[in-house]
Amino acid sequence: MKPVNLKSLALELNLSVPTVSRALNDHYDISQATKDRVRALASQLNYQPNPYASSLRRHKSRTIAVIVPEVANHFFALAINGIEEVSHSNNHHVLVYLTHDSQQREQTMVQLLAGGRVDGVLLSVASASSHFKHLSLLRERDIPLVFFDRVYEDSTYAKVTTNDYESGYQATSHLLDVGCRTIAHLTISETLTIGQRRKQGYQAALLDRGMMPAPDLLLCGQANKAQDVDRIEAMLRANPAIDGIFAAVESLAMGSYEACRRLGRRIGTDIKIIGFSNLETVDLLDPSLTTITQPAYNIGREAARILFQAVTKNRPISSAQSQELKSELVVRNSTVPGSCASAGGPLASGAVPVLAR
Amino acid sequence: MKPVNLKSLALELNLSVPTVSRALNDHYDISQATKDRVRALASQLNYQPNPYASSLRRHKSRTIAVIVPEVANHFFALAINGIEEVSHSNNHHVLVYLTHDSQQREQTMVQLLAGGRVDGVLLSVASASSHFKHLSLLRERDIPLVFFDRVYEDSTYAKVTTNDYESGYQATSHLLDVGCRTIAHLTISETLTIGQRRKQGYQAALLDRGMMPAPDLLLCGQANKAQDVDRIEAMLRANPAIDGIFAAVESLAMGSYEACRRLGRRIGTDIKIIGFSNLETVDLLDPSLTTITQPAYNIGREAARILFQAVTKNRPISSAQSQELKSELVVRNSTVPGSCASAGGPLASGAVPVLAR
Repeated sequence: MKPVNLKSLALELNLSVPTVSRALNDHYDISQATKDRVRALASQLNYQPNPYASSLRRHKSRTIAVIVPEVANHFFALAINGIEEVSHSNNHHVLVYLTHDSQQREQTMVQLLAGGRVDGVLLSVASASSHFKHLSLLRERDIPLVFFDRVYEDSTYAKVTTNDYESGYQATSHLLDVGCRTIAHLTISETLTIGQRRKQGYQAALLDRGMMPAPDLLLCGQANKAQDVDRIEAMLRANPAIDGIFAAVESLAMGSYEACRRLGRRIGTDIKIIGFSNLETVDLLDPSLTTITQPAYNIGREAARILFQAVTKNRPISSAQSQELKSELVVRNSTVPGSCASAGGPLASGAVPVLAR
Repeated sequence: MKPVNLKSLALELNLSVPTVSRALNDHYDISQATKDRVRALASQLNYQPNPYASSLRRHKSRTIAVIVPEVANHFFALAINGIEEVSHSNNHHVLVYLTHDSQQREQTMVQLLAGGRVDGVLLSVASASSHFKHLSLLRERDIPLVFFDRVYEDSTYAKVTTNDYESGYQATSHLLDVGCRTIAHLTISETLTIGQRRKQGYQAALLDRGMMPAPDLLLCGQANKAQDVDRIEAMLRANPAIDGIFAAVESLAMGSYEACRRLGRRIGTDIKIIGFSNLETVDLLDPSLTTITQPAYNIGREAARILFQAVTKNRPISSAQSQELKSELVVRNSTVPGSCASAGGPLASGAVPVLAR
């Protein structure tokens, strides 16, 4: 069988080889009608470009990299789905890299990627990361980079985030509104913007009601689930007045549930809990968890859209393209108003009143 | 600054260029001492191989592909973590492809990968897939392939699975042991081995107790969560005698929880539920869910180990390398024995007796 290549396609269609190549690569210079003709024949003959030859010629890998702390986390799983949709429609592949929250690993990955393996990088930084000199390698090699969710504060790159400060403020205000007076805050990283912003929102909400944020009500998770549960339990023992918990990440909200169970503290009654979470099963928890829900899929999609403007149209990315998407407070049974305690314990399962959606 | 390449490394180390190249590629012909010397200098000078040039030369991309239905599912998220560990230690990158359970998409991906983009493929098939002619393309191009979890029954490829039949048998026997007499089974796909095996285990357990599996107690999920909940609800309405549900996948177990809530059926009391699940929060559900827990991380790791024998050592993969890992029954409150109903309703939260772990 004769090999199907650009030359044989061009011959068959009575077009030049560069025109066929541009049509297949969706070049703006080629009419839609020609693109359709070329693609129809390429599809019919099952034309497969040689990825290495075309990479060398165009210096394009048709691949982007997504660097995330983990995928066993619903936020990142959904964000990757959003990224993957945009990449698919741009005919690009997605390489997923996991840092497991290690800055060492993040540096190694960025060094490898700077070797030219990908056309662009989407990065949600490792929570252990404290500086970002390694990222300059990408800029030196003209590899576009967009941050999403976990970003470096003083970055000059584009980033897609959520309104972390307002959400922290809103979560804390909600706990105050339902009667909490001693509110602990569980955060993930002192060096990460999302951690800082959520904490600042928490502190501001307390101060606006004339309350002082106390250092012994702050706990920073260590990305080790078992240890975090132990530390939350110790905090609750040391501060029996705590009647509200605002967890900056899903894993710490779940850790709070476990710590409260160990101590026999009734969630929603003795102590109210709110957490950032994209877990699909929050409604089925005992009790259902009040959440700040991030638009995870859209965060991934918007970050990918910004990146592909640079990847496919060669437009430089500026920090002016950054976007802040809104998160949503969804009230459930872990923060029923204070009167619930006097009404005789937690609400029965099967009759779950959602106060607001 | 002088470029750091194989030639400059060889000159500095007083070695030949092929020796340096082989040392960097962990060739068996090179001594460990030489490998260590070469790598130390390469690291010191931040040597970065040109990925396209070296791909063309060696026909190796140093990349493997993982094709999975989705990542917003704890099983696949954990399996990818296992795959990623093995790939990392073999100095390979992982490309993650999502089929969203579409066979069309799976075919397109396999065609692209057959173009030589990766050194090997790990595949968990789309549940809508009903044939696998497209996979012969990979074999024709000598690209090794290992299946994990969701496999084609008559495949001659290596596969890493769990004991789905025994687990289905065990789950159903457990429901019978705790007093259920009318047990529904929720499966995902009539064409997938995992679905068939789990169903066969369910049927065998019923027959061994002298009970006939009834067709109206079988429901096949459609990978659309909202519709699945509606259909489970309709099934429970049509068969009010159903007092047990065995869900073959996590999403259908969660769908059963939602359907029972809508109908005011008390889980663990009126109706008992067991499901395959790797969800981290099963203990915190209302009530906690009895599960068949798959060794997801190990499944990914073992599949990757088999693949890398072919990728790095050029050994052909045979179906004789297939592995079956054991899943585990973990009993929780959704299947407390029948006496619970007469003891006055569901157990209070905060005092969760785990019957067996």
